[in-house]
Amino acid sequence: MEIKLMKNILGANDEIAAQNRKLFAARGVVVMNLMGSPGSGKTTLLEQTLTRLADKIKIAVIEGDLFTAKDAERIERAGVDVIQINTAGGCHLDAPMIQKVCASLDLPATDLLIVENVGNLVCPAEFDIGENFKAVVLSITEGDDKPLKYPLIFKESAATVLNKIDLLPFTNFNLPAAREDLTTLHPTIKIFETSCTNGAGLDAWTAWLLERTAR
Amino acid sequence: MEIKLMKNILGANDEIAAQNRKLFAARGVVVMNLMGSPGSGKTTLLEQTLTRLADKIKIAVIEGDLFTAKDAERIERAGVDVIQINTAGGCHLDAPMIQKVCASLDLPATDLLIVENVGNLVCPAEFDIGENFKAVVLSITEGDDKPLKYPLIFKESAATVLNKIDLLPFTNFNLPAAREDLTTLHPTIKIFETSCTNGAGLDAWTAWLLERTAR
Repeated sequence: MEIKLMKNILGANDEIAAQNRKLFAARGVVVMNLMGSPGSGKTTLLEQTLTRLADKIKIAVIEGDLFTAKDAERIERAGVDVIQINTAGGCHLDAPMIQKVCASLDLPATDLLIVENVGNLVCPAEFDIGENFKAVVLSITEGDDKPLKYPLIFKESAATVLNKIDLLPFTNFNLPAAREDLTTLHPTIKIFETSCTNGAGLDAWTAWLLERTAR
Repeated sequence: MEIKLMKNILGANDEIAAQNRKLFAARGVVVMNLMGSPGSGKTTLLEQTLTRLADKIKIAVIEGDLFTAKDAERIERAGVDVIQINTAGGCHLDAPMIQKVCASLDLPATDLLIVENVGNLVCPAEFDIGENFKAVVLSITEGDDKPLKYPLIFKESAATVLNKIDLLPFTNFNLPAAREDLTTLHPTIKIFETSCTNGAGLDAWTAWLLERTAR
């Protein structure tokens, strides 16, 4: 019973995700679905990304959050078009939510639309929103066991950003083991090691984003 | 439509949670539902808790995880009865899952049953499993904005454990602000500041657990 129900929900979602994907392609927008645990540093990474790409491509942002507009306010300060979706307690964004807000975005003027999903390492990975690719942020302080414990999100993502790499010396995070687990789960996954505190790895990350945007 | 569906699911869950609660009371077991983000340090806190309380009370553990038994293996090494529930991708534990495994536990011999929920700051808070109280682990590296961004879990929890307090000097976490947000959301919440690396705050935390167990 429950499995059937889940399939129906995903069926309806996938249909609208396909419509979103068609619309994005027609408007020439590349869409990244950015996921990760609460506190992995998604918004800070996004701020750094916007600053570094501001004079290269036109970026718009959709911020998913349970209740507040705290993240959207941070992104707005970076001078970028941002739309806030409050899920009212819902643990992920879905395709209908994205479809609904797209009318408020100037899609033809946008090169890259970044959707920051709700902080959650489980549910967002299960819902296609019509993106071109997904990326997941995993902070060093979360532990090296996370890829094997939450495999779907790492299998679904084109890239993993190992963030807060500056805190590596203060943790027992085993970097070679984490890299190995990630590549075992997903052999073609790109892995970036970043710090938004000291700027490490951000050039490689933004260069990759630029490459994915120039289709 | 979707809201109705959610209510039905929760209705069925709440009924079984009430049955669980009745069973736990009859067997004289106190049950804590331990929640928190992936990587907040729930399992390490649990290991430290078990070591410190081993000669004082009899503890059993239920480990919730998506796929692996990694956490249960860690807890088993502490010499404690542990049951693993794999949710096969599900983002939270629910009351029927707990009901199902309770037959395998020696409840009359148990003083405190600790249920470590799936790593997730959203969904676990929405599902009563029949526990006596909830506690949430928030690590310093996740950021001080989390209580206001994920209010339900902090409103539902009798205690918040601010974990990895040893990393405070390396972050921009505003401790007074976080404490104020927590007390605004939930005036009677207990707040512990702990480090499983240097042992800070663990005595206060385990003393509180002992107090809650001796009814």
